[in-house]
Amino acid sequence: MNAIVRHNVDVPTQKLSAAVTRKVLSYNKDMMLVEVHYEAGGVGSAHSHPHMQATYVKRGSFLFNIGGEDVVAKEGDSILFEPNVVHGTLCVEAGTLLDVFSPMREDLI
Amino acid sequence: MNAIVRHNVDVPTQKLSAAVTRKVLSYNKDMMLVEVHYEAGGVGSAHSHPHMQATYVKRGSFLFNIGGEDVVAKEGDSILFEPNVVHGTLCVEAGTLLDVFSPMREDLI
Repeated sequence: MNAIVRHNVDVPTQKLSAAVTRKVLSYNKDMMLVEVHYEAGGVGSAHSHPHMQATYVKRGSFLFNIGGEDVVAKEGDSILFEPNVVHGTLCVEAGTLLDVFSPMREDLI
Repeated sequence: MNAIVRHNVDVPTQKLSAAVTRKVLSYNKDMMLVEVHYEAGGVGSAHSHPHMQATYVKRGSFLFNIGGEDVVAKEGDSILFEPNVVHGTLCVEAGTLLDVFSPMREDLI
């Protein structure tokens, strides 16, 4: 098949902290999809990377800090980050983010 | 801000058929996020394009045909399509797909 299919149930869960877990979904060298589940209060620490990143809020509510500016994002909201911008998030209401990276992030596998 | 933030509530809805609507979310020239909402029975007709595409099932259940092969995808499942592969979908249970394109698709805006 000319596609990479990953059924969520088959994907192992990585525990990042007491309140945050991650699943690395379909990827190839050019693109990677990653689900990150947060309990309220869970933190995605501020960091940066040279990869392009888009984040889509599947569910929940999140306070992002992007290059020093605060943004609240809720279900259905999306953010496209420039490469190397420092970004972090605090989960306000439990939920799930879908992160898309291009190229894929070797450090997550 | 070094990011493109789109709040879902601010994004216009494009009606594609009686059962399918679309919202074009954050994008730049290199990446585009698109939400597509389907009622059960809604069809995404078979088509192809040179852009890389990943699809994430936000909610619902979908029967995809990818280069002639059938795949069922449910909430949390993901598919990374090779460029130019013919793909289409039939919605089995109402829901939403998040499509990611790289580069962005000029024909959607």
